[in-house]
Amino acid sequence: MRVVVLTGGVGGARFLRGLKALQARPGQSAPQISHITAIANTGDDITLHGLRICPDLDTVMYTLGQGIDQDRGWGREGETFTTQAELSAYGAGPDWFGLGDKDLATHLIRTRMLDAGYSLTDVTAALCKRWDIGISLLPMSDERVETHVFIEQDGEKVALHFQQWWLEHRAGIPALGFANVGADQAQPAPGAIEAIQECDLVLLAPSNPVVSISPILAVPGIKEALQAKTVIGVSPIIGGSPVRGFADACLAAIGVQTQAGAVAKHLGAKADGGVLSGWLVDDVDADQVQDLESFGIRAKAVPLWMSDVDATAEIAREALALAEGIR
Amino acid sequence: MRVVVLTGGVGGARFLRGLKALQARPGQSAPQISHITAIANTGDDITLHGLRICPDLDTVMYTLGQGIDQDRGWGREGETFTTQAELSAYGAGPDWFGLGDKDLATHLIRTRMLDAGYSLTDVTAALCKRWDIGISLLPMSDERVETHVFIEQDGEKVALHFQQWWLEHRAGIPALGFANVGADQAQPAPGAIEAIQECDLVLLAPSNPVVSISPILAVPGIKEALQAKTVIGVSPIIGGSPVRGFADACLAAIGVQTQAGAVAKHLGAKADGGVLSGWLVDDVDADQVQDLESFGIRAKAVPLWMSDVDATAEIAREALALAEGIR
Repeated sequence: MRVVVLTGGVGGARFLRGLKALQARPGQSAPQISHITAIANTGDDITLHGLRICPDLDTVMYTLGQGIDQDRGWGREGETFTTQAELSAYGAGPDWFGLGDKDLATHLIRTRMLDAGYSLTDVTAALCKRWDIGISLLPMSDERVETHVFIEQDGEKVALHFQQWWLEHRAGIPALGFANVGADQAQPAPGAIEAIQECDLVLLAPSNPVVSISPILAVPGIKEALQAKTVIGVSPIIGGSPVRGFADACLAAIGVQTQAGAVAKHLGAKADGGVLSGWLVDDVDADQVQDLESFGIRAKAVPLWMSDVDATAEIAREALALAEGIR
Repeated sequence: MRVVVLTGGVGGARFLRGLKALQARPGQSAPQISHITAIANTGDDITLHGLRICPDLDTVMYTLGQGIDQDRGWGREGETFTTQAELSAYGAGPDWFGLGDKDLATHLIRTRMLDAGYSLTDVTAALCKRWDIGISLLPMSDERVETHVFIEQDGEKVALHFQQWWLEHRAGIPALGFANVGADQAQPAPGAIEAIQECDLVLLAPSNPVVSISPILAVPGIKEALQAKTVIGVSPIIGGSPVRGFADACLAAIGVQTQAGAVAKHLGAKADGGVLSGWLVDDVDADQVQDLESFGIRAKAVPLWMSDVDATAEIAREALALAEGIR
């Protein structure tokens, strides 16, 4: 079977690593995965020091290419930050974005290729050649679709780039809402719609629903393409808290409770024009399964902590099993 | 007195450090230097990985700013080459240009400022603020004037960028000649002509006469401005060999012997429309003094090895003394 995964950065990359492990060792009960396509959020992308940086694409690439810093979850293993320290010594900010020396090579090549007229899709494919990631990795769009965060400042509503809100302020300034700047003019990356149309299953990685999954769904055509597909999501919320990051601050801004079930309902049941066919919640959220089922979303409670690759492969297996039960 | 120095990279930067030391401790016999302006060769500048790199400007800046790698003579102290190794791992060359992680910050800021429309003169001043170099450092021009090297390849005369010939081939391919591409269209950097006009003395640092000093003189207006000035040069050739680098290969290409006196004659006596009022040669070349004097160039033999800052300050003092004797 062909699988498409919509993904953000760290959590999504780890989920993909588990899915790849399942592909390599499917066991008796799981269907054989023939191909994985990841469509990654590029709403977090930012230009710093003249360099185009795509954090989610890079996190997926480095994670699947065995180049990731395992502890941090982002950036390169054995990374150093010499250039960044020098930029700061020159007074050239910002200092809230970790720009590693190894990572810089990726941004230099990407920027140079983009400046030469290549699309982000082509650039991503070129960079991935080195990393031999074993899946097809696509940006959600070749056009710039940037997530901006509205905050109140001196009584005025102003917009920050997502990265500044997330990294400099650590999501500590209450968000009034989010905008996917450029989404209405954007097209899905070449091959993204085709990958969805030709796949047997779409998975939503356990990524931030507001600033990772939602920007992908905001690219015209993607949500529509999902309608004809079985779509299984993995909850990024366990026991009322985000597995990682500040999803709670994001959900609060759009009036959604930080609960596995609430996020699923926000994404919506397919029968009601929403996205989801099914939704995996963690065992601690088993009490929300019944409610989701009556809402029209098939649900199951399984262990959702991606503590290692095997545990993550098991989550992926449960997602495939839930999909089997639906079709 | 106000002094202007025409300079290349490593040798010129070390000479400037000695001149600055003389300015700080002039002693009884030397005139007090009130200001030093260095006009640096930019013919070696190159764009790599989308970054604009100005090796001679940076070498002067790092040397006078106490940031230079003392042993290597170029690049930053304690430098690492992490990004470059990663670029190579991606297959993105060239690998013959040493692009350090600390150094990269300089190139990133320069490139960004140039892209924003600032001139190289402005960019250089902005970068130098951090380094507190104590002199005015100007590029020879804000326009691109690139030194290309003609070589024979498969029976054809082809041109290489100077850096490729110098670093990749270590000047090992016989040069048929040099071109200062863009020089005829270029203007001196703002302030360069004024600095020459207002100065009391122009010094030629012991830099490569063919690919460091000559490109500066090729910028229209600079050679003309020197006519009204006392110009003292310091020989970069000692005992028939270049102090550093491949000046012999450069001189051979233009039919000049690798001899202190031959280089001076090539630069020419001021009375005959040439550049030089006087020329310092090393003690081992004392036999060439008489010939130069009769050629119309005041000459003196002194120790010219820049073994440390004090020895270099003494060379600078001798240059000033030679100038005193002329005026």
